[in-house]
Amino acid sequence: MSKANKTAISPRRDENYSEWYQQVIRGAELAEPSPVRGCMVIKPWGYTLWENIQRVLDGMFKETGHENAYFPLFIPMSFLEKEAQHVEGFAKECAVVTHHRLEMGPDGKLHPAGPLEEPLVVRPTSETIIGAMFAKWVQSYRDLPLLINQWANVVRWEMRPRMFLRTAEFLWQEGHTVHATEAEAWEETAQMLGVYAKFAEEYLAMPVLQGEKTESERFPGAVSTYCIEALMQDRKALQAGTSHFLGRNFSQASEIKFLNDQGQLEYAWTTSWGVSTRLIGGLLMTHSDDNGLVLPPRLAPRQVVILPVLTKGANEEAVFASCRELAGQLAEARVDGQPVRVQVDAREMRGGEKMWSWVRKGVPLRVEIGPREIEEGVVSLGRRDRETKDRQTMTRGELVATVADLLEDVQKSLYERALAFRKEYTRVIDDLGEFTAFFTPENPEQPEIHGGFALAHWNGDRAVEAKLNDELGVTIRCIPFEDDPEPGRCLFTGEPSRQRVVFAKSY
Amino acid sequence: MSKANKTAISPRRDENYSEWYQQVIRGAELAEPSPVRGCMVIKPWGYTLWENIQRVLDGMFKETGHENAYFPLFIPMSFLEKEAQHVEGFAKECAVVTHHRLEMGPDGKLHPAGPLEEPLVVRPTSETIIGAMFAKWVQSYRDLPLLINQWANVVRWEMRPRMFLRTAEFLWQEGHTVHATEAEAWEETAQMLGVYAKFAEEYLAMPVLQGEKTESERFPGAVSTYCIEALMQDRKALQAGTSHFLGRNFSQASEIKFLNDQGQLEYAWTTSWGVSTRLIGGLLMTHSDDNGLVLPPRLAPRQVVILPVLTKGANEEAVFASCRELAGQLAEARVDGQPVRVQVDAREMRGGEKMWSWVRKGVPLRVEIGPREIEEGVVSLGRRDRETKDRQTMTRGELVATVADLLEDVQKSLYERALAFRKEYTRVIDDLGEFTAFFTPENPEQPEIHGGFALAHWNGDRAVEAKLNDELGVTIRCIPFEDDPEPGRCLFTGEPSRQRVVFAKSY
Repeated sequence: MSKANKTAISPRRDENYSEWYQQVIRGAELAEPSPVRGCMVIKPWGYTLWENIQRVLDGMFKETGHENAYFPLFIPMSFLEKEAQHVEGFAKECAVVTHHRLEMGPDGKLHPAGPLEEPLVVRPTSETIIGAMFAKWVQSYRDLPLLINQWANVVRWEMRPRMFLRTAEFLWQEGHTVHATEAEAWEETAQMLGVYAKFAEEYLAMPVLQGEKTESERFPGAVSTYCIEALMQDRKALQAGTSHFLGRNFSQASEIKFLNDQGQLEYAWTTSWGVSTRLIGGLLMTHSDDNGLVLPPRLAPRQVVILPVLTKGANEEAVFASCRELAGQLAEARVDGQPVRVQVDAREMRGGEKMWSWVRKGVPLRVEIGPREIEEGVVSLGRRDRETKDRQTMTRGELVATVADLLEDVQKSLYERALAFRKEYTRVIDDLGEFTAFFTPENPEQPEIHGGFALAHWNGDRAVEAKLNDELGVTIRCIPFEDDPEPGRCLFTGEPSRQRVVFAKSY
Repeated sequence: MSKANKTAISPRRDENYSEWYQQVIRGAELAEPSPVRGCMVIKPWGYTLWENIQRVLDGMFKETGHENAYFPLFIPMSFLEKEAQHVEGFAKECAVVTHHRLEMGPDGKLHPAGPLEEPLVVRPTSETIIGAMFAKWVQSYRDLPLLINQWANVVRWEMRPRMFLRTAEFLWQEGHTVHATEAEAWEETAQMLGVYAKFAEEYLAMPVLQGEKTESERFPGAVSTYCIEALMQDRKALQAGTSHFLGRNFSQASEIKFLNDQGQLEYAWTTSWGVSTRLIGGLLMTHSDDNGLVLPPRLAPRQVVILPVLTKGANEEAVFASCRELAGQLAEARVDGQPVRVQVDAREMRGGEKMWSWVRKGVPLRVEIGPREIEEGVVSLGRRDRETKDRQTMTRGELVATVADLLEDVQKSLYERALAFRKEYTRVIDDLGEFTAFFTPENPEQPEIHGGFALAHWNGDRAVEAKLNDELGVTIRCIPFEDDPEPGRCLFTGEPSRQRVVFAKSY
């Protein structure tokens, strides 16, 4: 695999992007399909990544005053009916529980038994069940704001599942908040989008555009949906997180009312916001290359792997001991306030095979130590953001002293590379022919890789959006937040436009 | 509520124990019933307690070499059929998903639509779905041991739910491991029971008996079930954690085979082990009193609460500033390696009401500071393990210097009190009349509170167990691990017995 032109992942991105994506997941042992339709199994390497994502986000939620709680997996069918838009948005993809036991039939097989009076829906999102509880918890303005988050699994039936991006069951967090005033609910909506953008850029090293969704892309039941959008390496957009201003729609559906400081009863204002294991798909498609996963150091399950080089006749125990000693020293350093995560790989395996397994897993730094390095007091260092062959020799002391900086440098270089990529494929477009060409495959052998973010004017009409989606498979990803929007003429109708919006093909 | 004989929780334990249990949960805002039958909502105070339990246990699992992963919520019905005992054990309490969407009917109501070819069961436990994955992951003895844990929600339909103790949905962890040898699988089973016992005693401050279940109380499909059993204040036993040696039952059902180091294909040996949110019910019934929850400091969401005392004419800002300063100093101290968790309660609320709210929530230390205390440089300290009126005055410096010791002292006193209680209600019994009397309410006005652990001889016969269960509602909680078992004669049949076993009524 170390031969020129041979890559650790096959096919390469430019050969078959979708298959490359699956093979990166497989090669890194992030996850795999399960025998249950549309559901994946998250393997330890993928789950540890999720734990790191959770730890950081959870800290950010708590810093902004939120507390975690847990609400039922099941939602009575009648609850979903309460908000008309909401039920319309989710009815087509709900797993429905209709029975509460199994019975062995005369055919020697199990059959559902014990029909439920009212079917239960496995939560696709929890606005309605949480709303029912909030209606009890909120009585007076003194109970507000109510700032709750839940880490949970949700189910949205998927006909075309894709690991991490679209699975029937996925893991996520959903924030749900209640406020006394409209202004405060808007502030919360914006604040949490800011938290997501900060996390995406500083931890996932994934640059994101922030903006508002158009009406047709809104969360079902929301007054407004804010979102972060990232550009993947096939130049498709990925919606990576959303924050919804729900107005009074759900407080009216669930009767969340409070006595204001004037003693009057009024409906409260609510928000909800969420990110999911989809972030792992986004991270993957932002940084990975034809040798596999590339992990941003701040979230990597292991940041440094130490590979003992056992040449013939080497004193194995001495090499292992030297590796373990170095691991201990490296773990004293801190990245983002956490001890550096180091592993000595003592598996019995050929050296090349072992090294490539860590390349495919995306570990930021690989350190090789053999008898020669021990004698000279040095290490051989490989960075995952550089060519595999490109190694540096440095003293052990130097590595220990600079490991935190090296990791932050990898983090920074990944972000900058992704930002440069996004710049390269972001186009301001004022010509309809150019727009169409931008979203048409240039190379018929690479039909998957084309497009990018197109910034163009739009008249605000849903019909225009629908037509573009039908004809080019392009949607408006967001109306970007702009301090100083530039008005113009709609590219498609010539009608007035307040500002440019972001068009892209998307996941 | 501070009047003599008046308690913060009504009814008292001796008036109506079951209702007292519900009221402690309500008073502490741990959880509440939901509109979904059998499912509870875990409120922030209860969920933070669960997060602390998770953090400590997760650390213990990782120290013993386990990694976390995540498997599907749904299990195809046919998977459950693979292990005969297993399906028999769980078929009666499975939530069954039969449809994958909802449709609006002509009656204007939603109806399940899109019937599934094969119904899916919401996992009641994951041996079968995890087994199907392990069968792929395990090929050779080099892949073993495989040591996986999952934090997840599970569903077991409950006709008589009780918050934390028996709910349709609950949160838990389930460990699943695969081993090359029988001996290693037995060692794992014992090791994880040891982890649970250590956690129960050192963190929950809940003394536990360790032993093996009898055949009739075994996990469905296990060869042997090890358990920890604790004694609640109504003298009923609570099974608080189990660790199962599964032999080759599940590896045969799921075809988990490996090439051993002789190149022969053989079935692997598996274990599974779990604890759940039930631990919170156990903690509650071990320590709480008629004023509400009493929390062991190591797991308390807040360990110290600072209550500003705002007497008339006090300089409020000065009092708050002084409280915040103290909070900062206390947070520098460490308990169990973690910063002391302190909160200043600045809510607008009468002082007495505020203090009692923290008593009901079980916070280990309450510190009151008013203008007088500030002037004298002292604080007034109340411990949750002592009478509410029993307060100590000490200098601020003294409190800062000793807060960690004080918290460890509360932790220790709770454990010792619980141990003394268990000793008081553990009886060695060799007389059948005494056995019957022990499990018969002494006081007809307190039918709920009686019994305890009875150590008696038993001939090993299931029929004897069944009869005792029918007649007295008593079961064998465990066959305790004994280095030097004392043989004797079965109390019920006179037949030989290898050792005494533990009888109790139970949750």
